Amino acid sequence: MASDRTSAFPESEPETELADPMMLQWLGSLGFGVEYVRGGGNTLHFLDGAGEEIPVIDFAGGYGSLILGHNHPDIVRAARDFLDSGSPVLAQGSLQPAASEVAKTLSAIAQREFGASEPYFSVFSNSGAESIEVALKHAEFDRVLALRAVTEEIARHLDEARTAVRDGLAEVTAPAFDALGVVAQDRAAGAAGFERLAAAVRAENARRTARPPLFLALKGSFHGKLVGSVQLTYNAAYREPFAALAPPARFIDVDRPEALRELFERERGTVLDVVVDGGGIAVVERSFPVFGAFFCEVIQGEGGIREMTPEAAREIERACSAAGCPVVVDEIQSGMGRTGAFFASSRIGLRADYYTLAKSLGGGIAKTAVTLVRGRRYRPEFELVHTSTFAKDTFSSTIALRVLELLEADEGRAYRLAREWGERLTAMFTALRGEFPGVVKDVRGAGLMLGLEFHDQSGAQAPQIRAAARAGVFGYAVSGYLLTAHRIRTFPTASAVHTLRFEPSVLLTEAEVSRLGEALRTLCQILRDQDGRAFTGG
Amino acid sequence: MASDRTSAFPESEPETELADPMMLQWLGSLGFGVEYVRGGGNTLHFLDGAGEEIPVIDFAGGYGSLILGHNHPDIVRAARDFLDSGSPVLAQGSLQPAASEVAKTLSAIAQREFGASEPYFSVFSNSGAESIEVALKHAEFDRVLALRAVTEEIARHLDEARTAVRDGLAEVTAPAFDALGVVAQDRAAGAAGFERLAAAVRAENARRTARPPLFLALKGSFHGKLVGSVQLTYNAAYREPFAALAPPARFIDVDRPEALRELFERERGTVLDVVVDGGGIAVVERSFPVFGAFFCEVIQGEGGIREMTPEAAREIERACSAAGCPVVVDEIQSGMGRTGAFFASSRIGLRADYYTLAKSLGGGIAKTAVTLVRGRRYRPEFELVHTSTFAKDTFSSTIALRVLELLEADEGRAYRLAREWGERLTAMFTALRGEFPGVVKDVRGAGLMLGLEFHDQSGAQAPQIRAAARAGVFGYAVSGYLLTAHRIRTFPTASAVHTLRFEPSVLLTEAEVSRLGEALRTLCQILRDQDGRAFTGG
Repeated sequence: MASDRTSAFPESEPETELADPMMLQWLGSLGFGVEYVRGGGNTLHFLDGAGEEIPVIDFAGGYGSLILGHNHPDIVRAARDFLDSGSPVLAQGSLQPAASEVAKTLSAIAQREFGASEPYFSVFSNSGAESIEVALKHAEFDRVLALRAVTEEIARHLDEARTAVRDGLAEVTAPAFDALGVVAQDRAAGAAGFERLAAAVRAENARRTARPPLFLALKGSFHGKLVGSVQLTYNAAYREPFAALAPPARFIDVDRPEALRELFERERGTVLDVVVDGGGIAVVERSFPVFGAFFCEVIQGEGGIREMTPEAAREIERACSAAGCPVVVDEIQSGMGRTGAFFASSRIGLRADYYTLAKSLGGGIAKTAVTLVRGRRYRPEFELVHTSTFAKDTFSSTIALRVLELLEADEGRAYRLAREWGERLTAMFTALRGEFPGVVKDVRGAGLMLGLEFHDQSGAQAPQIRAAARAGVFGYAVSGYLLTAHRIRTFPTASAVHTLRFEPSVLLTEAEVSRLGEALRTLCQILRDQDGRAFTGG
Repeated sequence: MASDRTSAFPESEPETELADPMMLQWLGSLGFGVEYVRGGGNTLHFLDGAGEEIPVIDFAGGYGSLILGHNHPDIVRAARDFLDSGSPVLAQGSLQPAASEVAKTLSAIAQREFGASEPYFSVFSNSGAESIEVALKHAEFDRVLALRAVTEEIARHLDEARTAVRDGLAEVTAPAFDALGVVAQDRAAGAAGFERLAAAVRAENARRTARPPLFLALKGSFHGKLVGSVQLTYNAAYREPFAALAPPARFIDVDRPEALRELFERERGTVLDVVVDGGGIAVVERSFPVFGAFFCEVIQGEGGIREMTPEAAREIERACSAAGCPVVVDEIQSGMGRTGAFFASSRIGLRADYYTLAKSLGGGIAKTAVTLVRGRRYRPEFELVHTSTFAKDTFSSTIALRVLELLEADEGRAYRLAREWGERLTAMFTALRGEFPGVVKDVRGAGLMLGLEFHDQSGAQAPQIRAAARAGVFGYAVSGYLLTAHRIRTFPTASAVHTLRFEPSVLLTEAEVSRLGEALRTLCQILRDQDGRAFTGG
């Protein structure tokens, strides 16, 4: 192989942008058009026109992927050590102990945080969205197998009933014929009558079980943008253009979790079974699994940093448990210690059948994701039907393992830091709201997953502020202002653009918090005073 | 942050496997239960019981992800240099020039190989399956926008017709009323009659366009296993359990590509439009986009290394072009130079609207994927609705760029090597078939994407061979034999388990080819002689 380092690329027009040209132009117009050349902790550096490195404090944190910051030295070292070791990255169909170790560690953490003895199995994938697709697929696989078991049991019951009829021990009852709508002239005694009933039961059950499964999610949810996951994502702009590619989910209002119970009651599916009772063969109704899964975030990320209450969690757990509907908690953004516990759901006591993890699991360098499946739900046959070339690769598993070590080290110091800095930031944001009640509407979130919501500015006096609000890009304009005027990087949440997100790493410093405080204070003054010129940096 | 390196993991049971336990047990029973600790070029090393490193020649090649081999020194160096540079990996919402450069390079290569001037845009993702989901989503987005444009144009035509009627310049014709089934008593002259017609046109069009899109693929195809992509994957075992999660694709037999034209003719969708023609308003039928996309591999990987003929490619291109149906060529396994050209499709002259790339694009270390979208098809608005946290990350983009440099270096020496080694291996396999016609059934593929098909052994004399064949795991048993007896690593193709896959890197050596030749010769002798004991290593 040639190791010639001179580029032999074919000619191309250097001025043409072929990766997200429209997005890049738009970002540029808001002041985001810089190239970050160096990163460490919560700081990113870009080069200014003079080639000078300009530091920016990063509160966007890779959309929640950087709980340990940019280029954490221990993670970079783990990556470098791995590369030096000559260990193969891709060795599918062999023992892959690094992945197994990640699985074991995640299960142990889940068992500890939820006070449970049941283990969780890990299904690996490559992105948060993939981990949701895995949960969708596994839940549906489980449902299909459970449905098959019900169908097979009914077939056995029909065989038992047939034997009883043949042996003269039982006869089909009139109410059984009635239940199936078998009219008088089609009824008969003995085997003939039984076969008529059995055929009617089978036909009716085939009709009923052909019904598609229901997948449920919360209003405001964000679960990714692949074909399956995007239908679980509430934002209509992301979801509706692709409505023909997968069936719609049903969305529940988290403020009315009892709606879940009502939906389960309304949509419950039943099939017909037969029982030999004394000398009669009766038809009974029994449930079959219709509900694929209920998906939720315990703190909605893109939905505007909205926390689920412990009461809603209890209601969800009770309703889903009663309906036999598995609960999938999406911890892609909230997990990995960000809220002060490894699983945000453990803070409100929501025990799930599935947890999805990604983002920070890759340590800010690798791409890896895991869908944890509760032992009692896990279907080993799933391993035969779901695989991925890149999943379980040794590079990302090694890094994930190091991330878990760092989070768990020192009796969970990282979790404590997330909690403490979260309280510090929340206090600061709350003080800001107290000082600028007409500007700051709300402060939400936990740990280092915080949201600061602004009042609607579409009626603002300053035309620059009003225009941004009316164009639906107020949060982006605010972010652009913070970046250009204060070298503070953040973004609004994708589906609630009046809310700024703050998801720094646990390596936060008092100086960084102060810088943020000053910047936000100036921003609030500008918004209060309607200083449109300052807002657009003019 | 604590940099304490002592593990603070909670207790876990060390004997419990929580990542693919069933699969690992099964792989172990076939002799695959080894841990590879070092890899380079086409060689993997595992530790034997005595702690000795045992070399294995790897023809599985990470399922086609290692066109440059394990741990290519220049790629490892690029990864290490990147880590040393302190460059941030995740900096969404900023300029990401490494990704832009990958996009530019891929477009230039596509333009060169297809002799075209039209550029291709890149949409980045994290795995091959994701790149298919992106193609699905983009094609559907394009269809929905095109459909909306048709609907809006018809609305404009209705407005123009309304004006003509109002101005006394035109009247609805009787055939127009007939076409809509407007009965005589509902017909009227002037505005009233026109509004009756317009309402009927709108209602009829709403009914017709509510029809779901059709996505097409080839029998034998493999396009991944996420919710959308798995429905494009032909193998029923992978696809059917998830049939309720996304609509089914229609599968075409590649040996009868004219079936595509027939399907387009049969399923073509039309809506009603109005034209003002002289003094009359007539109703005409016009097409609307029903066909989402046609997906294909030009060499089916998991389907058994099956090549598409240039004739089939021409027929596909003609039929899809006539029907306005975009062609998606899945080059995830066949692309990146593996077949002697960067795009396998360029070898048979199949120009597509979309190409998907992954696997080797990550250089065997990183995970990245690209969906190339032909300029005329590209919808910039897609950038607003489809994003991914990990996509476009600088680490994998930097590595992808280095991979492209290495492939293109030295006037495409890598492509020449793939071609030449492919010819060498093909000649060897063909000689083997000549020598063992009762054992080797077929030799297929191009470059370093080759398949060796064995005759069905389910009627074999040797019980060990017969049992493996009847259990549907003959190819896995053969792979287990090659690994344990000859230290040769390969696997069968996932959906055609009588075919062994050979996808080594371009760094192949004559010694490795010889070793493979000897091993396969011994295997063929065993199968010819029905030496069951040798087959199972007993």
